[in-house]
Amino acid sequence: MRILLLNPNTTASMTEKAAAAARRVASAGTEIVARNPARGPASIEGYYDEAMSLAGMLDVIRTTPDVDAVVIACFDDTGLDAARCLTDKPVVGIGEAAYHMASLISNKFSVVTTLARSVPALEHNLHKYGLASRCARVRSSEVAVLELEEPGSNACQRISDEIGRAVAEDRAEAIVLGCAGMTDLADQLAATHGLPVLDGVSCAVTMCESMVRLRLRTSRLGGYAPVPAHKLAPA
Amino acid sequence: MRILLLNPNTTASMTEKAAAAARRVASAGTEIVARNPARGPASIEGYYDEAMSLAGMLDVIRTTPDVDAVVIACFDDTGLDAARCLTDKPVVGIGEAAYHMASLISNKFSVVTTLARSVPALEHNLHKYGLASRCARVRSSEVAVLELEEPGSNACQRISDEIGRAVAEDRAEAIVLGCAGMTDLADQLAATHGLPVLDGVSCAVTMCESMVRLRLRTSRLGGYAPVPAHKLAPA
Amino acid sequence: MRILLLNPNTTASMTEKAAAAARRVASAGTEIVARNPARGPASIEGYYDEAMSLAGMLDVIRTTPDVDAVVIACFDDTGLDAARCLTDKPVVGIGEAAYHMASLISNKFSVVTTLARSVPALEHNLHKYGLASRCARVRSSEVAVLELEEPGSNACQRISDEIGRAVAEDRAEAIVLGCAGMTDLADQLAATHGLPVLDGVSCAVTMCESMVRLRLRTSRLGGYAPVPAHKLAPA
Amino acid sequence: MRILLLNPNTTASMTEKAAAAARRVASAGTEIVARNPARGPASIEGYYDEAMSLAGMLDVIRTTPDVDAVVIACFDDTGLDAARCLTDKPVVGIGEAAYHMASLISNKFSVVTTLARSVPALEHNLHKYGLASRCARVRSSEVAVLELEEPGSNACQRISDEIGRAVAEDRAEAIVLGCAGMTDLADQLAATHGLPVLDGVSCAVTMCESMVRLRLRTSRLGGYAPVPAHKLAPA
Amino acid sequence: MRILLLNPNTTASMTEKAAAAARRVASAGTEIVARNPARGPASIEGYYDEAMSLAGMLDVIRTTPDVDAVVIACFDDTGLDAARCLTDKPVVGIGEAAYHMASLISNKFSVVTTLARSVPALEHNLHKYGLASRCARVRSSEVAVLELEEPGSNACQRISDEIGRAVAEDRAEAIVLGCAGMTDLADQLAATHGLPVLDGVSCAVTMCESMVRLRLRTSRLGGYAPVPAHKLAPA
Amino acid sequence: MRILLLNPNTTASMTEKAAAAARRVASAGTEIVARNPARGPASIEGYYDEAMSLAGMLDVIRTTPDVDAVVIACFDDTGLDAARCLTDKPVVGIGEAAYHMASLISNKFSVVTTLARSVPALEHNLHKYGLASRCARVRSSEVAVLELEEPGSNACQRISDEIGRAVAEDRAEAIVLGCAGMTDLADQLAATHGLPVLDGVSCAVTMCESMVRLRLRTSRLGGYAPVPAHKLAPA
Repeated sequence: MRILLLNPNTTASMTEKAAAAARRVASAGTEIVARNPARGPASIEGYYDEAMSLAGMLDVIRTTPDVDAVVIACFDDTGLDAARCLTDKPVVGIGEAAYHMASLISNKFSVVTTLARSVPALEHNLHKYGLASRCARVRSSEVAVLELEEPGSNACQRISDEIGRAVAEDRAEAIVLGCAGMTDLADQLAATHGLPVLDGVSCAVTMCESMVRLRLRTSRLGGYAPVPAHKLAPA
Repeated sequence: MRILLLNPNTTASMTEKAAAAARRVASAGTEIVARNPARGPASIEGYYDEAMSLAGMLDVIRTTPDVDAVVIACFDDTGLDAARCLTDKPVVGIGEAAYHMASLISNKFSVVTTLARSVPALEHNLHKYGLASRCARVRSSEVAVLELEEPGSNACQRISDEIGRAVAEDRAEAIVLGCAGMTDLADQLAATHGLPVLDGVSCAVTMCESMVRLRLRTSRLGGYAPVPAHKLAPA
Repeated sequence: MRILLLNPNTTASMTEKAAAAARRVASAGTEIVARNPARGPASIEGYYDEAMSLAGMLDVIRTTPDVDAVVIACFDDTGLDAARCLTDKPVVGIGEAAYHMASLISNKFSVVTTLARSVPALEHNLHKYGLASRCARVRSSEVAVLELEEPGSNACQRISDEIGRAVAEDRAEAIVLGCAGMTDLADQLAATHGLPVLDGVSCAVTMCESMVRLRLRTSRLGGYAPVPAHKLAPA
Repeated sequence: MRILLLNPNTTASMTEKAAAAARRVASAGTEIVARNPARGPASIEGYYDEAMSLAGMLDVIRTTPDVDAVVIACFDDTGLDAARCLTDKPVVGIGEAAYHMASLISNKFSVVTTLARSVPALEHNLHKYGLASRCARVRSSEVAVLELEEPGSNACQRISDEIGRAVAEDRAEAIVLGCAGMTDLADQLAATHGLPVLDGVSCAVTMCESMVRLRLRTSRLGGYAPVPAHKLAPA
Repeated sequence: MRILLLNPNTTASMTEKAAAAARRVASAGTEIVARNPARGPASIEGYYDEAMSLAGMLDVIRTTPDVDAVVIACFDDTGLDAARCLTDKPVVGIGEAAYHMASLISNKFSVVTTLARSVPALEHNLHKYGLASRCARVRSSEVAVLELEEPGSNACQRISDEIGRAVAEDRAEAIVLGCAGMTDLADQLAATHGLPVLDGVSCAVTMCESMVRLRLRTSRLGGYAPVPAHKLAPA
Repeated sequence: MRILLLNPNTTASMTEKAAAAARRVASAGTEIVARNPARGPASIEGYYDEAMSLAGMLDVIRTTPDVDAVVIACFDDTGLDAARCLTDKPVVGIGEAAYHMASLISNKFSVVTTLARSVPALEHNLHKYGLASRCARVRSSEVAVLELEEPGSNACQRISDEIGRAVAEDRAEAIVLGCAGMTDLADQLAATHGLPVLDGVSCAVTMCESMVRLRLRTSRLGGYAPVPAHKLAPA
């Protein structure tokens, strides 16, 4: 099985970090094909970056046909619905994957993401998915995405502090880390705080494996009807 | 006052039709600046077209700075949130404008749009805006967007039939027409069915005029925080 | 165009203050006809005052036929639904107008109103309109309505303090002022806090102008069916 | 114990019918004091009638102090919130009483009321009370309130037909009769359709008895804070 | 009339305390038949205890046929839905009874229960009943159920402190005590805090009396369809 | 890896059918340990059966310690919350597994279950999980659970007919089969209707495998706090 791990931003170090996380949890027979668009935003922080990354990331899907499933490795699940119109192979966003998984091991979870500007988009996603009632609060740590790539930053400590507040104030039973760049912090934070801390990349990879094994494909009726051929011609 | 009427698809005849509707309702001192992107989908029918039109439509906003407000003339309010990060001038989508206006003259309204594939995106918008409880049902007439541009099609009759069903089955008190291309049908359909039929283009134009006159601007706190300068460089 | 600006309480100074706000934003050709009932509560603070003002305010509408639209200038939108059964001309409450406008320029807003006793009625309205999900919190400043008419009170400071809390605690991106008597404070508070502060009177006036220009009228189907003639006879 | 049975409309025959229903279920020591306002609408069908009956009905409460609880015998629970500010004695509307009781004996109920124009007000009440999720649908039988007072009308048959549709289409497990004038039809309709059919008058009377016995009084904090004395002076 | 007061746990002192509370409010002609299962958990604190008490408590219902109604005297309304399939006599949980009653005397209430582990189950119940929007917050006092049976514990003070926080932080207008073992504290706490404090046992008993007097029985359609005879054979 | 496939009813043929479905999708290294309680209901159809099966099924979990995860193979997710208090190993219900998976491949799905009496419990689950907004409708086929075990019944045809109605009336984009006994029908029904048809058993097995591989465990904070040792003694 081959899974396209698609980082919608152009920062190769984040693509590699996510790919490493994916490979740690993938089954023996699964190959992780890690890609990011050549052009577009270097980080996705809010509505505008999300919009500007879409053409590039959909192009990666179109030009990487030889895979069995797609993981969208940005926590706002960039382009998820559009991607599902482009292919009926399973497409899973790391945000939704983490929300669904967290719902199976806690009554309520909180999300700790990067900047305040990203919070409303995540709240909209939670409402769209139906899981808003399971999320106590979406919190921002005010750690910028690219700070997570800088060795020596105190990003982890600030995220940890925010988790502490989520447990005390939100009565959160689990924490979802709200950025693909936080993927390597999950185990340590779980140990520190004594509750499950979920990383969306690893959740999404195993969900894709499940869906491929179950031969589940995106419905072609209604909102995910396939894009007509004449609209798929290169722009 | 100058209002950018931005059709996110590339079909110039639709841009012109929407501009004509806008000019019919605009105040004496308002100039309608009608634009559409040079490249992108010819019609927006569902998630994929929406995604593929974003870069182009945001580029039009960036390169048309000398306006006081922006109307996004596609009923799925393409790129609305991203546009609000790009400028603090009022940005109003024709979908949201019609939903808000319909909420002021009816207890419940139904939407009659084009294809079934567009319905879930509109339902998500209604939930995001908070107005889902005011909408009895989003209905598709199975009239494709570009059919509305063809003289002699029976599109108007099929839309009218769907309105009849909305009144009978949904107990709708008003109808929102779910496509910028239907803008010229509203008066006739209102007369036929004896209830308000709202066209989003005219609603959005007058709302923008109001907001400019009230000097209301999009908040710069939270989700619509301005895009950092280095991210605005041409892609 | 003539717009009836109807203050449902009997305090003429509030009627005048609201009329002045209305005239500041009205278009050149719009005449503001300001009225209040002769008898009834001097201020509307909670459910009981609202109920006791209804007969008087509906009587003003009945006896002021020569207008094109009606603005109900009390923030709890007193008698809004009943007024829409009495006439099919646009009727807009200042509460709903501000909520709808705030939804176009922020992801979430908070309301700062007068007394705690008024909060549940406003929360019910937000739910009825569908916009509760857009409102972070309805806050009371514990400033009584008539204090706002007293020169030299510290009412403005207390309202400003509450706005500060709304930004800090609710993550509000905009503020709606929850009383017609606060209409003259909006600009100053917006400047102080650096976010949009909306006054319902001016929002409602421009919305009415839009609706008149668009020839939108309240639906006669369902809940706003016209009152039968025999029920309109003077009581 | 004395319970004020307050019919907010001026039709004495309806007051008597409701009083008879109340007396049938009242405990031995309970006296039913039946009243209606001297002036106001003869029937309450929709928002306008409701508004016009408020001053009269609140006046009855003010001038009938020697009771232990108040039943508001109109299915739209006219003036319920205002009445609770006027007295801390239990005040129960027949609509809410029936909804609460129906929630204790069914997973979902439907309401069968009089005219379509009354439906949105009832839907708003259900949302306000929180019980909208328990109500499958509010249905109108198109039987006017005063038809229920006419011997020989086919009103009962039309209501029965609507109940049949509620069972078949809504999967309703119980029926709430949506008008005080239907109070005498409940037993027969329950027998015909083989499911519980609830009349709000009898539900409200026994609930008031319970609350008096439990010495429960309306909270004086927040929205039901008592009306200040100077506002209670006769208008 | 005979009402089965069924304590689902095996602690006889709690059964007696609840029975005493029931007898204080019951009508002259009502006999309270107090029972608890012989085997099962000694206290019900969370999902597991609830599950383990079900067979025992349903067995008490099956073997106590000669009653007119059933009160389930555990605040999580243990086995409520199952009991309604077993008999069409009124079955009322003390949690739901208190929530419904509190909705009649306040705009919003808060619940003060025992341990944090019980909170999610109560929140689920509130959602199921439809009354979640009426509840400001479910709070735990961290008083274990059996502490309430210990003379000299400071349980009442800790519950009182939590009520203070509910008033200050939640703007609660009434308090629901979230455990059958708190039934004797209600009056004192109401006096201390100056707002209604509801005990579910007394609410449920009077509701059952009402339902018996009204001859209301659980619907046999849909979810409460009677259990087939062959499934009622002793296990 | 060993997964306990726990059928909460006592019908061994259903246990075997579910085990066969589980083994078809399990990974090479996964052993399926299929169990059902020795005593309890032979089928779970509604609230009462669910309650009566709980002690038995929790006993199976307690006495089968040597597994890595638990699948509860009844579509109402019998005892799910209680099981999560008993062990921190992943516990997944087949209902929730199918709902979560269906949310990843469709905008809206419908459920087709057995009897009408089971519908409300499933609707409650959907609300509790947060996924009610993703489910268009829960439909009953009026096929009893044990009919699915009878060779030669027309159960499959009736289920297929109901799926046809779900597509036509609900605009469902995917179908969830609402009974563990339907597990062998999914592929055929998907082919017939041209949309995804999900079987919860296979969804739950692969989800458990994912969770074990990710080392995700149920949170021990809040509602799933571990059962105290003294409450785990044999009853």
